[in-house]
Formats: sequence, C-alpha cells, structure tokens
Amino acid sequence: MILTITLNTALDVTYRLAAVRWHGANRVKEVRCRAGGKGINVARVLHALGRDAVVTGFAGGPTGEQVRADLAAAGLHEQLVTIAGDTRRTVAVVETAASDAATLLSEPGPRITGAEWRRLLGHVDGLLDGAEAMVLSGSVPPGVPPDGYARLARQAAAAGVPVLLDADAAALRLGVAGRPAVAKPNWEELHRATSARDPLTGAETLRRAGAEAVVVSLGPDGLLASTPEGGWRAVLPDRLAGNPTGAGDAAVAALAVGVASGQPWPLRLTHATALSGAAVRAPLAGGFDQVVYQDLLARVRVTPLTTGEGAQRGEP
Amino acid sequence: MILTITLNTALDVTYRLAAVRWHGANRVKEVRCRAGGKGINVARVLHALGRDAVVTGFAGGPTGEQVRADLAAAGLHEQLVTIAGDTRRTVAVVETAASDAATLLSEPGPRITGAEWRRLLGHVDGLLDGAEAMVLSGSVPPGVPPDGYARLARQAAAAGVPVLLDADAAALRLGVAGRPAVAKPNWEELHRATSARDPLTGAETLRRAGAEAVVVSLGPDGLLASTPEGGWRAVLPDRLAGNPTGAGDAAVAALAVGVASGQPWPLRLTHATALSGAAVRAPLAGGFDQVVYQDLLARVRVTPLTTGEGAQRGEP
Repeated sequence: MILTITLNTALDVTYRLAAVRWHGANRVKEVRCRAGGKGINVARVLHALGRDAVVTGFAGGPTGEQVRADLAAAGLHEQLVTIAGDTRRTVAVVETAASDAATLLSEPGPRITGAEWRRLLGHVDGLLDGAEAMVLSGSVPPGVPPDGYARLARQAAAAGVPVLLDADAAALRLGVAGRPAVAKPNWEELHRATSARDPLTGAETLRRAGAEAVVVSLGPDGLLASTPEGGWRAVLPDRLAGNPTGAGDAAVAALAVGVASGQPWPLRLTHATALSGAAVRAPLAGGFDQVVYQDLLARVRVTPLTTGEGAQRGEP
Repeated sequence: MILTITLNTALDVTYRLAAVRWHGANRVKEVRCRAGGKGINVARVLHALGRDAVVTGFAGGPTGEQVRADLAAAGLHEQLVTIAGDTRRTVAVVETAASDAATLLSEPGPRITGAEWRRLLGHVDGLLDGAEAMVLSGSVPPGVPPDGYARLARQAAAAGVPVLLDADAAALRLGVAGRPAVAKPNWEELHRATSARDPLTGAETLRRAGAEAVVVSLGPDGLLASTPEGGWRAVLPDRLAGNPTGAGDAAVAALAVGVASGQPWPLRLTHATALSGAAVRAPLAGGFDQVVYQDLLARVRVTPLTTGEGAQRGEP
C-alpha cells in the first residue's frame, strides 16, 4: 500500500460557461465537483495503475463530507482525519469560447488546531504499518507547523517507509530536512525554494539539505534527476498538447511505485516521464490515458547527465 | 406573521481579493457565506423591522444545511422543505482594488421533483394559517411548473392571505394570473414581461392580467404605483450612493408590512421608498441603515400621477 497525505484537501469545483461577463452577472450552466488536492490526485493515478493507495489528511464540515463521498465513489480508500473547520473549495471558471481558459480561485481553507495536527501525526503512525511508501503532496494549511512535512517524513523514516515530497516554497525547503527518499519540485518551485540559477544546482542544494534524491519536472522538457546512483535527464521524443495540470502528480505516482518496487533510477524516470505525458492527454488532474502511457513508455529517452548539462536553463 | 417564499434558495459566497488574475491562479484571502435568495433577503428586512417572518422554500444537501444554519444564526424562523438535491451556491468575486467591482457566478440549482413541489404546496397551506401576507420572490428553479407562483398565490387567496409577487420574465407574466395584491417588478423586469414602452403602460398590462396593484421600482428614480386607489410616483429628494443590491427586496418588505397593516397607498409607498434608500446605504442585501430610513421617511415625496406621466421613460 502507498500512503498519500494531503494536508490541504479541497473540493475542486469547475464552472463551465461559454464566456464570463467580468464585473457582471453570469448564470453557470455546468457545475462539477471533485475531491482535490495533490495527494488525492496521486492516489487516483496509483489506483488507476492497480496499486493500493490510502488517502489521508484533513477533512471537515459539509465540504469535507462531499470530499469523502467523492473519494468513495471513485473507489479510493480514505482515512481522513476529521477536523472542526469546513474543508476548503477551489473554483475553476472555464470559458469554453476562450479555448477552455480557466480562472482558478482557491479558498485558504480552515485553520488546523494543534490538537488536530497531533491527531494526524498519531493517525499516520498507525497507517505507516504496512505502507511501502508515503507521499507528501501540496500546500500546508494554516495552523500546521511550517516544518510539518519534515516531522511526517521523520516518522516514516523511523518506520522504515521511504518518503516522496512534492511541495513548494517553505514547505519544500523545510520538508527536505526530514530526509525524504525523493523530492519532486518543478523548476519554478525549486527556484523559489533555493534561488538556484539552474535545475541541477537547485537539485544539489536540496540534496545537501537532506533529500536523498531530487527529480525536477521541467514541463515539456521532461525530468532532470540527481540521485545517489547518478544524474539523468528523461525526455519525450515529441511535445504533447493537452492539460498540464496533474502531470506532476502523475510523475510523483510513478516515482512512488518505483521507490516501493526498488526499480533502478532510469526505469523510474522512464515511467514517470511517460505517465506525466499520458496525464497531459487526460482532461482532469488524477487521470491519464492508458494507451498513451504504454506508447510513451517505449519512446522515453533517459540519458546520463554530463558535466554542466543542468546549467542550460536560466531563471524560470 | 409574514410568510416569505424562496423557491431558489442559495448559499451566497463572497470572495474578496485585491484583483483577480483572469485566466490565472488566485488565492482568495477572505471568504464569506450567507443564506441568500430574494425571499430570504425580504425576511431579513422584516426581522430587522421587528416583524415576525417565516422563511420557506426548498433546501437540500450539505449546502442546504449551511443555509439553515445561517438563517438560525440570524435569528430567522425557517420552515424550509427538504429536497434530495444539493442547494445551489452563488459566488460573488469582489475586487477591492477595482472599487469593489463584483463578478457574480450563479449555479443553476438542483431540479425540484414533482413530489417535492407537491410537498411544498401542502406545507405552505399549513403555514398560511396565521399569515398576514405572503411574499413570492425571485426565480423559479428547474422542475417547478412555470405557473408555480400563480398556484401558490391562489392557495393564499383561498386562505384570505394577500400576496406580494417579485419576479422576472415568465415567472412574473404567469404569476399575476394568481391575482396577487401587489406585483413589484423593476422596470427592466416589467419590460421583459410585457414589452411595454413605459412603466405605467406595463403596470396597467400586469393589472389587466390579474395583479390588483403594481409597483414598479425605477432605481434612483423611486417607485411608480398603479393601484385601485389611484396612481402615484414616490421619489427621494436626492440620489444616494451605495449598493443597489437588495433595494428591491427592502421595498417588497415595506409593501408587505403595508398590505398586512392595511396602510393607505401613499404611506406604503413612502415606507417602501425610504426603506429602499436605506438599503442602498447598507453593504449587504437584506440589510438597511436604520438612521437613514428614519431620515428618509420624512423626505420622500409621493405625488399622484397625472395623465401621461408614466410615459416619460423609454425602453430600459
């Protein structure tokens, strides 16, 4: 079983309408709701890969109930910790007449109390028994200590469970102190956390700060990995048109499977790159196109990094 | 007791942020939720006037629970009928750096089943016992027959309870067949329902279709009334800056009190105009400024309509 932790769960609401009259009144024709948060998207991908995944994190109030109901409907096993506050929503306003351009509005979410945070730590401790890997994904809600991810990662290390960390800014910078097996920022997040001028330098900075390996997602330019076994770059032979939301979550899911299975790094990167590409071709985060995935698996190119290669990119 | 009916209840959510990055990602700092729908706003005004008001209509699902909780917190007596669907939300995105310009996104709301509609009719029948007036306000949700307001108005007439109707388009056009004591469209709504070229002609058309009296709200130009006692225009001595949302609901609340108390028409119009103005000076629909209300009461001018006066305005 792979345990995924989403501290800042959300109900992701999508409003689709032809075009929005900004500063006017709009009737929304189509409303869709879906449990969201990066760890939940990772669990969806794992589930679709046929892997056991357990979703934990916080859920509360009527919106938390909707999140639980949606997870159950998707066949995902949830072990969310109940909180007093109401789970947040995100609203994506999609304009079909503007090539599906989306305006995203994210609520801050309820403040987590000290008691709720301690309850989660105890709860995760119980769930680590039998976990092959633990995924820490997404933002940290108000009330959770800034080094919350580091504490969770240390718990997992004490239980012998490898950790994957996908976070931004302070959550990433402080989280690597918990010595995760893999940190997977994208290049913007890595730059924000380290101020590095290029992905390889940033990855090496995070490794010195505690991450055993760092995989940087570079959007259409694939992945760059700095690991104890060496450095690699993984790329797709051609660019894919589609929806990049969720591509990073798919990469994390593949890396979690790779870590859990003890795959060699080049194979992990092949799967992560192919699954990312297959997620770009799926309309919703947490989904991927199985046919595209199988096709891309044979076409990903993984090459060892040569000196100076990581320094090709400037600031994001 | 004055009974207010809101068939299309909503949870009105307000997101306040400095400025929205359209087609980008936005973190919302401030989220407020409030029970909404025009009948609920009327009940809020009645409550603040010290009048007993009962709120009915439909509520369902987790959002319906939030609507009920907010009404209870406001001290309003609710007798909403539970439905299987989830009550809709409206989202107002307010940009503080753009003079609080608001973009409103209204969900369509759940479809009401035939059984739920019949349940409401029976429920209202019970509530009419002891009601001094009944207010029918706002849009009609999918599943409710287009002449739903006429049926409710006929039930009230059978129980000897006068009806106030505040609706738009087909709901207004078909609703007046139920012979309400007062229909209160604004000029745009009246024009949509009757295609009239001026407010007085439109009002007379609605009266021929069944409304005993018609009061047309003309925004900053006050009210125009066509009644069995005669025609009047009511105006404020000066223009008020503020938020016009809810001004119509305040006028309806004042007219309901006037109908329930048997006030002469000029007094009803004085109260309705002053309360509308006091609502413009309050930040939220359903609120009004008590000091402004008392001040305006002494300053409203009500004058009998002279021949041809209603024909001053062209299309809205």
